[in-house]
Amino acid sequence: MLGSGTVAQTLSAKLAALGHDVMLGTRDVAALMSRTELGFGQREPFAVWSQKHPQIKAGTFAEAAAHGELLINATAGNGSLEALARAGEANLNGKVLLDVSNPLDFSQGFPPFLSVVNQDSLGEQLQRAFPQVRVVKSLNIVAAAVMVEPRSLADGDHHMFMCGDDAEAKAAIRDLLTEGFGWRHVVDLGGITAARNMEMYVPLWLNLMGVLGTPMFSIKLVQ
Amino acid sequence: MLGSGTVAQTLSAKLAALGHDVMLGTRDVAALMSRTELGFGQREPFAVWSQKHPQIKAGTFAEAAAHGELLINATAGNGSLEALARAGEANLNGKVLLDVSNPLDFSQGFPPFLSVVNQDSLGEQLQRAFPQVRVVKSLNIVAAAVMVEPRSLADGDHHMFMCGDDAEAKAAIRDLLTEGFGWRHVVDLGGITAARNMEMYVPLWLNLMGVLGTPMFSIKLVQ
Repeated sequence: MLGSGTVAQTLSAKLAALGHDVMLGTRDVAALMSRTELGFGQREPFAVWSQKHPQIKAGTFAEAAAHGELLINATAGNGSLEALARAGEANLNGKVLLDVSNPLDFSQGFPPFLSVVNQDSLGEQLQRAFPQVRVVKSLNIVAAAVMVEPRSLADGDHHMFMCGDDAEAKAAIRDLLTEGFGWRHVVDLGGITAARNMEMYVPLWLNLMGVLGTPMFSIKLVQ
Repeated sequence: MLGSGTVAQTLSAKLAALGHDVMLGTRDVAALMSRTELGFGQREPFAVWSQKHPQIKAGTFAEAAAHGELLINATAGNGSLEALARAGEANLNGKVLLDVSNPLDFSQGFPPFLSVVNQDSLGEQLQRAFPQVRVVKSLNIVAAAVMVEPRSLADGDHHMFMCGDDAEAKAAIRDLLTEGFGWRHVVDLGGITAARNMEMYVPLWLNLMGVLGTPMFSIKLVQ
């Protein structure tokens, strides 16, 4: 697991509960552990969360990447390329990387805008920068709690999308999402260029979160 | 009705069936009427369609705008600003303009990219260029046939969004969509800046149309 925020914590806890051996990667483990302030959305300090999840190890990006058979990028989008660079190609190449991040730029406040958009995407940037990594974009279009517990909404009768250039990697992610997390409907949008479409949906998602007053929602395709 | 393509035709026919007195506006009426080639998606020539809908008048953008109490922009997005300029402020000011267009650029083929995106939108451009027009963005996120017959999908149990700066104009559009077209769920996303979110969803919609093999779908918000 690359990243240590809410999404990384939520995914790590779920994966550990499913029996996976999870290591969470961050830039500076000591700095992360020593933080005492509350995080975004009054999130408890990492060390407090970590004590509740002793089975989840923490390490550097490189250690976590070396540890994992399946990698998940849950870093903030503006730090994803650097996180992968720190993880190192030797620890990444050949592996499946589930990219759940979004290229959100909060420098001008809320709502954020997209730092890469339209004819490119963060998913594509990651794939181009690490061509030997099998990038699959998914889960970036719902809140962390929905990612891992889709059945908490309408008994799971709503849709998740994914995309990527490697069919085998997409099959592995489909298994994780359906068998592991309980997603009932996972739609393959095609190659990694579809990441731009999944990322460009996120501003609408943020807008809807404000209107609905909750991040606990998802969309169902109706035909 | 500003525009003469599939969306304009579909909306015009529905509005006429509802009893509205519809005039469709185009740049050059004679040129439109004299076209004999099939349009996009094997659409019949306009003159053929027009003969089937004799109650729908055709005129210039200015004539149609002068005619209408409620205006709808159903031009191609790359021609919308010019169409409104041709319509003329005197014929537009003070009126509600439902903007259903999308800023799609097909110059590099399919899929198109967005010609305005992220920190601006076509809806905002129209509102800025014509500050006395009460712009409401809606319907741009589904196919024309779904715009006017939402109950054809899942008995209408799916969602439409709208946004705009004028509350009264949004109330009028909400009435048109619900009472007129049969939409059951219309979500107000806020001011016209939300048009960027609705427009940035369209590339995902186009992607899904390809995957599903049909434009006859919509999304339902699931909580």
